[in-house]
Amino acid sequence: MNKKELIIQLKACNAIQFGRFILTSGAVSDYYIDIKNASTDPPTLKQIANLMAEHTTDYELIAGMELGAVPLIVALALETNLPYVIIRKEKRKHGTGKQIEGGTVKNKKTILIEDVTTSGGSVIKSIQILKENGAHINKVITVVDRESGAREKIQSLNIEFIPLLTVTDILQK
Amino acid sequence: MNKKELIIQLKACNAIQFGRFILTSGAVSDYYIDIKNASTDPPTLKQIANLMAEHTTDYELIAGMELGAVPLIVALALETNLPYVIIRKEKRKHGTGKQIEGGTVKNKKTILIEDVTTSGGSVIKSIQILKENGAHINKVITVVDRESGAREKIQSLNIEFIPLLTVTDILQK
Repeated sequence: MNKKELIIQLKACNAIQFGRFILTSGAVSDYYIDIKNASTDPPTLKQIANLMAEHTTDYELIAGMELGAVPLIVALALETNLPYVIIRKEKRKHGTGKQIEGGTVKNKKTILIEDVTTSGGSVIKSIQILKENGAHINKVITVVDRESGAREKIQSLNIEFIPLLTVTDILQK
Repeated sequence: MNKKELIIQLKACNAIQFGRFILTSGAVSDYYIDIKNASTDPPTLKQIANLMAEHTTDYELIAGMELGAVPLIVALALETNLPYVIIRKEKRKHGTGKQIEGGTVKNKKTILIEDVTTSGGSVIKSIQILKENGAHINKVITVVDRESGAREKIQSLNIEFIPLLTVTDILQK
């Protein structure tokens, strides 16, 4: 499956919509991305996991932040048989106080999965949490990169950044 | 795979541990269940999804509450090709204010998935949210039922309750 086919599939399940959209910020956009419409559609989720799996050779662990990335990392884990961890947005108040759910990440060659990257704030936070817990993290895969700063921030940490699609790809429809 | 084999697999990935455990409540237990150790282990997750899939005939939609049930519903969706929705613990403060993520549940024949059931509080909350949103919900599947009230609460709503394992099964090891 190439980029063009992925765009067709994302449009078919309404994960990418074209039209006139007023964003929460008040700005107007001529496209709208809701990856949840892709990740709750099993055939599309399988395709995404399949495309991501090509980039997981030599990795020991998959990681992603709740909640958007969770379906993607579960599907990728089932596709590759690699274990995964879920990064919580906040540390648990009760119980263990852990911010990472799943097995240990220490010294594990880890690949970080995102659904959509924009300015990169959330992905940088995930990278920091993984590093603080001892993971070796040198690759990030996202389904769609909005090209609003994430790439530069990620690459400045010497981490490889692989978007399955960029907004440029999508607008070249 | 029968119950005995599932117990062996859950023990192998440390989702069930025997010993002396002091619970958060201060009570002492001679077993400890952490289904996250099963759901982050792809072979075990596949087995659980496979066992649950036997009960999904005639259903149109899978549902589960964040965060524990999410890996289970994603794996079950991939196994059955049924779409799924995620029930949020709280309504989103920003954006749409939705409590259910994914497509519409209205008039959909829906099966609810839980990881562990105890007194049934959380499962009853999920059932209420699904009903408020128009879903037809008449079956709940859980991986482990602690036999502390969930069954009675669920069945009093005329909803079928299927635990893959009960604590009685586990203690008859």
